[in-house]
Amino acid sequence: MTFDPETATFLIAGPVRIHPRVLRAMSMSSLNHRGDYFHGVVREIRELLPVAFGTTGHQVILTGSGSSGLEAMYSSLLPREGRVLVLSNGNFGERSDQIVRRYATHVTTLTAPWGQPIAPEAVRLELEKGDVSAVCVVHNETSVGLTNDLAAISSEVRRAGSPLLLVDGISAVAGIPIQIREWGIDALVGGPQKGLAAPAGLALVHLSDRAVAALHPGSFYLDLKAHLKPLEKNDTPWTPAVPLFLALREALLLLKEEGLDHRLAKTHRLAEATRAGVDALGLTLFPVRSHASDTVTAIRNPEGMGDPELRKVLEREYNILVQGGQGALAGQIFRIGHMGIADWPDLLVTFAALERILGKAGRRPTPGAGVRAVVDHMP
Amino acid sequence: MTFDPETATFLIAGPVRIHPRVLRAMSMSSLNHRGDYFHGVVREIRELLPVAFGTTGHQVILTGSGSSGLEAMYSSLLPREGRVLVLSNGNFGERSDQIVRRYATHVTTLTAPWGQPIAPEAVRLELEKGDVSAVCVVHNETSVGLTNDLAAISSEVRRAGSPLLLVDGISAVAGIPIQIREWGIDALVGGPQKGLAAPAGLALVHLSDRAVAALHPGSFYLDLKAHLKPLEKNDTPWTPAVPLFLALREALLLLKEEGLDHRLAKTHRLAEATRAGVDALGLTLFPVRSHASDTVTAIRNPEGMGDPELRKVLEREYNILVQGGQGALAGQIFRIGHMGIADWPDLLVTFAALERILGKAGRRPTPGAGVRAVVDHMP
Repeated sequence: MTFDPETATFLIAGPVRIHPRVLRAMSMSSLNHRGDYFHGVVREIRELLPVAFGTTGHQVILTGSGSSGLEAMYSSLLPREGRVLVLSNGNFGERSDQIVRRYATHVTTLTAPWGQPIAPEAVRLELEKGDVSAVCVVHNETSVGLTNDLAAISSEVRRAGSPLLLVDGISAVAGIPIQIREWGIDALVGGPQKGLAAPAGLALVHLSDRAVAALHPGSFYLDLKAHLKPLEKNDTPWTPAVPLFLALREALLLLKEEGLDHRLAKTHRLAEATRAGVDALGLTLFPVRSHASDTVTAIRNPEGMGDPELRKVLEREYNILVQGGQGALAGQIFRIGHMGIADWPDLLVTFAALERILGKAGRRPTPGAGVRAVVDHMP
Repeated sequence: MTFDPETATFLIAGPVRIHPRVLRAMSMSSLNHRGDYFHGVVREIRELLPVAFGTTGHQVILTGSGSSGLEAMYSSLLPREGRVLVLSNGNFGERSDQIVRRYATHVTTLTAPWGQPIAPEAVRLELEKGDVSAVCVVHNETSVGLTNDLAAISSEVRRAGSPLLLVDGISAVAGIPIQIREWGIDALVGGPQKGLAAPAGLALVHLSDRAVAALHPGSFYLDLKAHLKPLEKNDTPWTPAVPLFLALREALLLLKEEGLDHRLAKTHRLAEATRAGVDALGLTLFPVRSHASDTVTAIRNPEGMGDPELRKVLEREYNILVQGGQGALAGQIFRIGHMGIADWPDLLVTFAALERILGKAGRRPTPGAGVRAVVDHMP
């Protein structure tokens, strides 16, 4: 079989597979981005975004990748005074650290080894040293397939007098549970291309009342403040990527029809099935199991089978797309995404193919065990 | 008739009407943005961009609106030393001035009244005062329907020892002739949503060898330097807006099939027809005729017929979409875009409708004169 990008089983860590309804939504003819119809699209998105974020609040839509949302958040919100504490245990933690250091002078980076969570106790110790004005954390670290315990971390932040809590939630929104209000999150950046299953190219920023009051101009294009007034009139300060807004509206409608709780529960169940399949095939999770992410499973490459070889066989022989490791993990792990509209057929064929590949490589996995582990998790 | 955004005659000043082939291109299923197929898409875009820019060179594709490209250009290129000369005679000149002032401390803004071109002699006088390290100019000022004489201005820049020449060409690319090399342009930002007739949401930046050598880090997300190395491998530093790349590729293929010269000649002919139609109806151009833009015609609202009333009648009664004035010109002018894939039927129905509207308002335009003026310009 030759790999066919249009029919492949699509399980990369995002951008994820897009529903045909969402694809069709983009093919609407040109719209006046300052006219009534498009204002209606923006209004609907604003009404629907709370479904994705799980709460109402101030929400900004930027035309740009997730990283543009991160820079918008940090450049518009990092306090001029005090220390900024960045929590980093993966590729995206490093990215936040890089951006934060462009805008803040006193930065402390608290790291954990890749595959290990940020320990809330370590955060407490750093906070107890005093003078921290903002804490920056990646909720769901896609690069290592790990979810940081934001409930516990946020509790430490509140205990320390509530410095600003700024969250990279790009791969968390509509993928794992987030309690924006309960955890006292001041700003959170979400991406449309993960749990929401819309195309990449927009960044979704949630802001608390306190964050809105603290906004200051940073970048010109990424100035969050410039968006708030136009958005009240369902308008954008700069020319919006109209097709991506149309796609986002449709993806949010799909989420509303399904229900956020159902989307999260389904994602969790697929993740449990994937982890069970990994065990059944005798493979090893990369992150500690207690903090393995529900949106993406990172798996150590089997001994003697490097990456990208394993992925290339999946692609060429089975028309299945999974993802390799990023940065320092290139060649060490592969990652299976199972968020958005991923479904049982995707996992079944992937674990069937993995068994065949491991078998041919002489690793003798228990026949049928991987697929069986997935089946056992089906409703 | 009720206004129907999906069938309307679509003549706003951009984003412009998108060809069905380009719309269909976006509905391709999800792609691995780090995989071979998408790398092939980026490679094709890189091969095709010279068709749009009229020259080869270093070209960067940003996921973001045109304004993101402007900030990328200014933040990555404005010299730390010397004076920056900004030429401003419209809304977009003011926007460039705003962005430039975020990144440069010594800024001189040379203005011309809206509707008047920047005089090359005035540029010369400013340059003769010395110490200018960069000149920033909007080539085609969409807000007032005017094209600045970049050939003459660039000649003054070269005469003054060639400070960096940075051009907002967002609405110029594939709309009006640009001689990037002959004029010694160091950086030019183009937009896909004007003459190229692709959706908004990407910014296209051309860089000279000298500009590449001068790049320095400005913003994180908009750092042009971060794009150059990945692009050599047909990759992007941040997650790209895949559907917009697919659309851009298709729009560039359409342009290549048509030929840039043909696209520009057609745009010019439609502009001439529009200006003749304006005269024939007894209406008045907003900008001086000698510098009227070929991509968009700005017309004073007829006395006693305000804006948005005129546009609302065009929309509601005739299903025709034109654009109003921006900023200080809101209510003063309306604008007809005629770039990209705009065509004769669009102009014919627009001038037919304008005659009816003016007639009903008791202004007695010569019967058939507007349409006739358009017909006279058809091939």
